[in-house]
Amino acid sequence: MNPSESAQIGQDIYALIKTLYPICRSITGDGVRNTLSILQQQFPLNIREVASGTQVFDWVVPKEWNIRDAYIKNKRGERVVDFQQHNLHVVSYSLPVHKTLPLAEVKPHIYSLPQQPEWIPYKTTYYNENWGFCMAHNEFAELIDEEYEVCIDSTLADGSLTYGEWLIQGDTDEEVVLFSHLCHPSLCNDNLSGIAVVIFLAKYLQQRTNRYSYRVIFAPGTIGSITWLSENQNHLDRIKHGLVIALVGDRGAFTYKKSRRGDTEIDRVANHVLRAHSASASIVDFTPYGYDERQFCSPGINLPVGRLTRTPNGCYPEYHTSADDLDFVTPQSLAESLALCLQIIDVLEWNRRFLNTNPMCEPQLGKRGLYRNTGGANIEQREFALLWALNLSDGENSVLDIAERSGIAFDVIHAAACDLERCGLLKFLP
Amino acid sequence: MNPSESAQIGQDIYALIKTLYPICRSITGDGVRNTLSILQQQFPLNIREVASGTQVFDWVVPKEWNIRDAYIKNKRGERVVDFQQHNLHVVSYSLPVHKTLPLAEVKPHIYSLPQQPEWIPYKTTYYNENWGFCMAHNEFAELIDEEYEVCIDSTLADGSLTYGEWLIQGDTDEEVVLFSHLCHPSLCNDNLSGIAVVIFLAKYLQQRTNRYSYRVIFAPGTIGSITWLSENQNHLDRIKHGLVIALVGDRGAFTYKKSRRGDTEIDRVANHVLRAHSASASIVDFTPYGYDERQFCSPGINLPVGRLTRTPNGCYPEYHTSADDLDFVTPQSLAESLALCLQIIDVLEWNRRFLNTNPMCEPQLGKRGLYRNTGGANIEQREFALLWALNLSDGENSVLDIAERSGIAFDVIHAAACDLERCGLLKFLP
Amino acid sequence: MNPSESAQIGQDIYALIKTLYPICRSITGDGVRNTLSILQQQFPLNIREVASGTQVFDWVVPKEWNIRDAYIKNKRGERVVDFQQHNLHVVSYSLPVHKTLPLAEVKPHIYSLPQQPEWIPYKTTYYNENWGFCMAHNEFAELIDEEYEVCIDSTLADGSLTYGEWLIQGDTDEEVVLFSHLCHPSLCNDNLSGIAVVIFLAKYLQQRTNRYSYRVIFAPGTIGSITWLSENQNHLDRIKHGLVIALVGDRGAFTYKKSRRGDTEIDRVANHVLRAHSASASIVDFTPYGYDERQFCSPGINLPVGRLTRTPNGCYPEYHTSADDLDFVTPQSLAESLALCLQIIDVLEWNRRFLNTNPMCEPQLGKRGLYRNTGGANIEQREFALLWALNLSDGENSVLDIAERSGIAFDVIHAAACDLERCGLLKFLP
Repeated sequence: MNPSESAQIGQDIYALIKTLYPICRSITGDGVRNTLSILQQQFPLNIREVASGTQVFDWVVPKEWNIRDAYIKNKRGERVVDFQQHNLHVVSYSLPVHKTLPLAEVKPHIYSLPQQPEWIPYKTTYYNENWGFCMAHNEFAELIDEEYEVCIDSTLADGSLTYGEWLIQGDTDEEVVLFSHLCHPSLCNDNLSGIAVVIFLAKYLQQRTNRYSYRVIFAPGTIGSITWLSENQNHLDRIKHGLVIALVGDRGAFTYKKSRRGDTEIDRVANHVLRAHSASASIVDFTPYGYDERQFCSPGINLPVGRLTRTPNGCYPEYHTSADDLDFVTPQSLAESLALCLQIIDVLEWNRRFLNTNPMCEPQLGKRGLYRNTGGANIEQREFALLWALNLSDGENSVLDIAERSGIAFDVIHAAACDLERCGLLKFLP
Repeated sequence: MNPSESAQIGQDIYALIKTLYPICRSITGDGVRNTLSILQQQFPLNIREVASGTQVFDWVVPKEWNIRDAYIKNKRGERVVDFQQHNLHVVSYSLPVHKTLPLAEVKPHIYSLPQQPEWIPYKTTYYNENWGFCMAHNEFAELIDEEYEVCIDSTLADGSLTYGEWLIQGDTDEEVVLFSHLCHPSLCNDNLSGIAVVIFLAKYLQQRTNRYSYRVIFAPGTIGSITWLSENQNHLDRIKHGLVIALVGDRGAFTYKKSRRGDTEIDRVANHVLRAHSASASIVDFTPYGYDERQFCSPGINLPVGRLTRTPNGCYPEYHTSADDLDFVTPQSLAESLALCLQIIDVLEWNRRFLNTNPMCEPQLGKRGLYRNTGGANIEQREFALLWALNLSDGENSVLDIAERSGIAFDVIHAAACDLERCGLLKFLP
Repeated sequence: MNPSESAQIGQDIYALIKTLYPICRSITGDGVRNTLSILQQQFPLNIREVASGTQVFDWVVPKEWNIRDAYIKNKRGERVVDFQQHNLHVVSYSLPVHKTLPLAEVKPHIYSLPQQPEWIPYKTTYYNENWGFCMAHNEFAELIDEEYEVCIDSTLADGSLTYGEWLIQGDTDEEVVLFSHLCHPSLCNDNLSGIAVVIFLAKYLQQRTNRYSYRVIFAPGTIGSITWLSENQNHLDRIKHGLVIALVGDRGAFTYKKSRRGDTEIDRVANHVLRAHSASASIVDFTPYGYDERQFCSPGINLPVGRLTRTPNGCYPEYHTSADDLDFVTPQSLAESLALCLQIIDVLEWNRRFLNTNPMCEPQLGKRGLYRNTGGANIEQREFALLWALNLSDGENSVLDIAERSGIAFDVIHAAACDLERCGLLKFLP
């Protein structure tokens, strides 16, 4: 991608986020369906509906939640909290309620952030039947002691959980999973950024030939990945690598969280690409807390699935508040995240093993036009790459192994290996 | 142990040391027997006598040494060196002697410390028949050139080597050895501190139920552990872990010396406990010099036995001198050492493996009352501990493994695992 | 070696370099033959001739190159470049030429170093038929625009490649290869230093009894080692260790470059000896660029062959220029390099495993006269060495393993092991 293509794609990703931002998503309901419909305009997706009550491992698909309106009105009939203004104002999965109550009885149902008094927090009550509102602490503090009309016009009823999925068929049936959670309401970085970057990544992969098949999944966090894993438990052996992609729109440095195993190929590839990308990138160990990597890396599943974010969950003050808005993510960061994902995928695609067909001493590169003809004191990086590729292509080492041992970029080693393969000095190992 | 219990137990340990301090112990003889009798008033011990001349591996149990009196008298009949004043004045295992000699012929038999002129050194001559005195260098320097009456009223004759032993039977026959050497005369830290702490540790373990059986051994250094190992050589496979405990009364930081293997469970447990206890604690590699870990870790024995001290042998100036006295050890240090030993033992006792009974994705903790109900930005350490215990309980990892990988204290992981076990989400692995 | 022997041997090595310096060597030809004849005056060598056109793995032994004279004359008949003054003036393997050409047509055939304007560079054109001159950039800049007579009186014709080899038979047929390249013309450090040090090393080894057999090889770089490996490909399993020795006359610190495997015995031995020798010594990882270790460490050969230099190739400005002259190397550095090679060899020779014949507890060293008799606070390094040698001689650990784990010098552990072997407490393992 050249700079102007990159600028354009950043704008396109950002535009998609802008379209999706107003929708009130949750782990089920029409917000999820509307979001997936909009994504389908960009990229083919199969939409799956899984009925409430379905057993998925230790969990049960919950009732479906939908909401039309919610507010708190003061005595003068003014909405002091208004779902129409911001969908974070209602605690997700709140039961319907319509009552007039004194302030003292409303207060236990209101969440605010005294430390960040202008931001609305994001709260959920998926598995505990309750209702609640969220509001800026400044406004909360101004509520006077009177009666308030509280109304949440929601429904919680049998229905289904909705997710979207598509397989980009590659040369082989070996799959790379790209997973992004889509259960959050109006929060841009978490996780419209992940959804939009994965859509554009998928569009790009769809239009070219790939060695691996790529399975993109957009599903609600936790219950969505559990549902998907439960439904696909007999086919998990197809998954060779995976990435959970989330929180990739902010201005922070990249963070790759390793899979539970910690030494898988995706872990090594992501480490190589992030280290080459920037000294400020972080590689962190697996922990069983975070996003859907928790499920892919549960002990009975234990797939080689890592997670790519910029600043991780909980590590920026705007996290899970109304300040995670359209200003918090930038077209530039989004384009850069897309490019980094592609680099990781390209290294995965090209990380193969070669075999030196002439392993006894070095072959004579000069007669094959691969080497300078006049000996002296200098040697070029390209020649080093040729020598490394020959020396380590003993059937044990992949291109990434050679890149890491030599300290030469993956691309340079890969190009050298391809040149040597064309000369017959290396051959691909399947 | 609460602070006042701890203060009391420190006083009790110190009181025992005070009782044992005046006795002149050596590797054999009545000093050892008297010491063991006093210990028996605190805790049951079987006393073993092994006859002089008994072959124990490459060694032979030596003749028994006893002493009644020893002195050097000047011309005026004054005792310028007097065993009755301090039993360090006589070189341990000195042959009987009674002669009048000029100073020049006495001098080669006198040891002093020019660098520490007020302290009496501690010397032995177990396997080289000789006699000698130790004295403060200041007093040595004042000896005038005249004739002296030297007298050592000792006996070296066939007899036996004495040691004490007790097994605290646990739920299993797997044994943890707690070894403390008791061959030193009036030296408090080396090793009345070890003896007294082990006695109180044993009393505590005796009164509760334990998974392991605990074998406490009080024997002379080197020849005592060699004798014990020789007599028990057919049962050594019962020993799963062991600690040599010595020099635990001074004010220095704790030092754990690893077993010869270096990566055994006791090594990992002690490392975990000491690191959690204090940043100034040291973990040092095995060396074949020190106390009875030398024998337990000889190549043909090679048991997982480490050593716990505070400041190690040879690393404090008072070591093996009369300055290792009742002021050098403190009730506080002794109580803290006891508590640390107990922590090590408790981690050993509870370091078991669990199996996640629901390994496919996370189980739903909320419905079991183990998890907060309202989702948001925060999570508590206890919840992390639950997630780690679930995630790593794949049959491979012990509670200690989980504590180390997660960076969470052993106790917190252990408590979480027990809660999960009560819910049926984990089960114990035998 | 005592200081005066060392000073003498440094002078002797330097004198040999001085004798060899004027000869114009290349990868084939009479320069190589004359060099080997002079070496034969010092040490027996078998001279091998391998005919041009012989296939050696992927390569073909090239035509033989010889040169009598070469110059560039100006209009006044003055030699502005004169091979008789310095043999670096002609590009090695230049085709014969005799023409009168304008400056513009001569210039593309002239190499100089603008950054180092007083030094003549060293250039070769072995596998690309061409001709050329090298000269100081200052003199090059003074060439005026006129016609020049260029003459290279060389021959490139069927002949042979010449190398020298000798086996110093040891107690076993297990071989240590000592390889030094001899293809460079008047360059002292690269590699008359290596050649001369290896000759004196070989003379020393020849006059004593060794456990290993030592195979010394003097051959041209790259094509020489390829030829040797090709001719000896069925006997490579005899080679247990090897060192390429080159660039050992300069004043820089030692650098050991590990074998491709990186953890072989020669790698560990060289690391131990260099670290003990000086804090400024470097141990560097294998790379497939450098000298003949490239061939010994090609993937199909993969022998445990490392490389010893002082400052490595390309890491000093004088490298491959006329400044690598008789002032650049010193008798002192050469003597020190010889001594270091001998230390490496002695550790290899004595790095054996012993078995503790009394592995149950420590043996009683005192009764065998190996231990101080009066116990107290101190212990000597020699006693530590005895205890370490006993403790780790379980059949797994070599003397080097024991030295590394104990932190005690190889020689001290080795001496202790020999004493214990004399007492029957250790026995040699074959």
